[in-house]
Amino acid sequence: MKSRAAVAFGPGQPLQIVEVDVAPPKVGEVLIKISHTGVCHTDAFTLSGDDPEGVFPAILGHEGAGIVVEVGEGVTSVKPGDHVIPLYTAECGECLFCKSGKTNLCVAVRATQGKGVMPDGTTRFSYNGEPIYHYMGCSTFSEYTVVAEVSLAKINPEANHEQVCLLGCGVTTGIGAVHNTAKVQEGDSVAVFGLGGIGLAVVQGARQAKAGRIIVIDMNPDKFELAKQFGATDFLNPKDYDKPIQQVIVEMTGWGVDHSFECIGNVNVMRSALECAHRGWGQSVIIGVAGAGQEISTRPFQLVTGRKWLGTAFGGVKGRSQLPKMVEDAMKGEIQLEPFVTHTMPLDEINHAFDLMHEGKSIRSVIHY
Amino acid sequence: MKSRAAVAFGPGQPLQIVEVDVAPPKVGEVLIKISHTGVCHTDAFTLSGDDPEGVFPAILGHEGAGIVVEVGEGVTSVKPGDHVIPLYTAECGECLFCKSGKTNLCVAVRATQGKGVMPDGTTRFSYNGEPIYHYMGCSTFSEYTVVAEVSLAKINPEANHEQVCLLGCGVTTGIGAVHNTAKVQEGDSVAVFGLGGIGLAVVQGARQAKAGRIIVIDMNPDKFELAKQFGATDFLNPKDYDKPIQQVIVEMTGWGVDHSFECIGNVNVMRSALECAHRGWGQSVIIGVAGAGQEISTRPFQLVTGRKWLGTAFGGVKGRSQLPKMVEDAMKGEIQLEPFVTHTMPLDEINHAFDLMHEGKSIRSVIHY
Repeated sequence: MKSRAAVAFGPGQPLQIVEVDVAPPKVGEVLIKISHTGVCHTDAFTLSGDDPEGVFPAILGHEGAGIVVEVGEGVTSVKPGDHVIPLYTAECGECLFCKSGKTNLCVAVRATQGKGVMPDGTTRFSYNGEPIYHYMGCSTFSEYTVVAEVSLAKINPEANHEQVCLLGCGVTTGIGAVHNTAKVQEGDSVAVFGLGGIGLAVVQGARQAKAGRIIVIDMNPDKFELAKQFGATDFLNPKDYDKPIQQVIVEMTGWGVDHSFECIGNVNVMRSALECAHRGWGQSVIIGVAGAGQEISTRPFQLVTGRKWLGTAFGGVKGRSQLPKMVEDAMKGEIQLEPFVTHTMPLDEINHAFDLMHEGKSIRSVIHY
Repeated sequence: MKSRAAVAFGPGQPLQIVEVDVAPPKVGEVLIKISHTGVCHTDAFTLSGDDPEGVFPAILGHEGAGIVVEVGEGVTSVKPGDHVIPLYTAECGECLFCKSGKTNLCVAVRATQGKGVMPDGTTRFSYNGEPIYHYMGCSTFSEYTVVAEVSLAKINPEANHEQVCLLGCGVTTGIGAVHNTAKVQEGDSVAVFGLGGIGLAVVQGARQAKAGRIIVIDMNPDKFELAKQFGATDFLNPKDYDKPIQQVIVEMTGWGVDHSFECIGNVNVMRSALECAHRGWGQSVIIGVAGAGQEISTRPFQLVTGRKWLGTAFGGVKGRSQLPKMVEDAMKGEIQLEPFVTHTMPLDEINHAFDLMHEGKSIRSVIHY
């Protein structure tokens, strides 16, 4: 079948809106009609060419919501008409990782997903007869996309797709990191580095967890108003200080914060986030994705004196079993999604969404088909 | 009073056995007659001049056992004749850290201890009228030493000092790291980097915790026999492989180990230890003390895919409340100390103990007065 799609033909080039061919779903696969998709920094990261796993030409996009159109052989958990969110972190329920109870990092489709192909090693997308690669197992920048059954969360059909598509990545990652990875407790102090979609979601998660002080750090003070609305209590612009921001935070808190979150992907900020953690028990969670080959570093003394350095992917959330509940929470207003959607636009304007993100003018632009 | 002591007059110099003057204990202080002391790598580290906190002249030694001789004003928890182990990690029970229930890093005497003085800012040791600094709040290389009351664990008077002095540092650190920091569970896989006293204690702790596979890594295969006796199951000499040892461990285990421990103080090994941890949940505990200014590094992807980087000091053990129980465990044979004591010698021969350690010929030399 034919589908409108925004194709990344090469690194650093604008996306091109073209009509691609989409092959039917094979065994264990599902054809989805995407209704809405967010545009996330990770899409921009891969498009830039900095992502070592990036392959081209590809259809990016991994933060979507849609409706099942057709299921391949053997698919039992969804049927045509079901409302779904595609998952870049699958949940097969059967691999070592799913069965461990310790992590959401299912490996069912990991190897092929990382190469931009479906589990059988081929693509479902083509253009002028040439294959086009999938992206993060989702490719939500195509109106019709094919996804593995294990990479689909079935959600309440009453949910507002324009909003809940954001639970496909950023908002879930931020909220999940607070509850699943850091396990923030009532009264704990929190520092959030970077107030993009993920950072703002961390602030929401911290307020849900009844954190005490919620310190937010961003070089763009325009972000502080929304952070305050979500529950942030202290606002720091590193440009206002002539000393390292971790030192500022340690001084203002006494010994540092109980939990810090890096939501940017900057390895220097990751160090600051670790080093502002409380001596004895403070922990720092890396959420942002750094550029290829970049490394984090610190003095080991930081860890020997009780700090912990962690990371999280998709906020530790198991997509098929936990995401439907988060959709319900959003429908009840317990997760606020509406303020994240600062811009909406049709697929034709998707390159403008990237511009807005790079200019720091949007939290999330949501594309509708 | 006079006391025989091995004094470090300057970095890189052999210790000199001299008779120093020891002033009486002041408020909250206790005079101890040390009967035995181990010689630990940390003493050698400070003596080398690489320790940024090292001050000279000083009386080193921090792994001792002895008997209370005299108590200063206000001391209530010990009395003359009590058997004790001096603690370089105090436990006041009243500071933010002690009260947190989350860490053993008491700050009661931390600031002055790091400067080589007692809490009132002065030293109790002098030689020819010139002050000699304390070390780690213990200075067990003096037959008579003065220690803060909060830095003393009162132990069973029946305990064998030649052995339980090792609970003052290395053995407790290793065993504590397994139980308190990593919280190893039955069946977990473990990798131990470096088979000095701490590494061997980690092996013992892992066996106590009923770990499954216990992989030990050392460039000196002479250490493997004792490790095997303590419960190690797999023995790796990095010299036998032409690829990074973390890769060897990941390949032999499938996805890496549940817990790894760095027991050397080498920042490159710390990286190996992290990177051999299991994707999704593996954690690596830094125990070794690195040289001044040295840094650890890795790609943040290692953490984002679920590994945790931790550290530990004194194995997370609260000395006054938990060490007496470990002494009991040793008396019952549940902690084996005897195999650690490969050499004993009088104070006069203490420099030989350092030589044996540097040559890799001893696990622990214990000095008796």
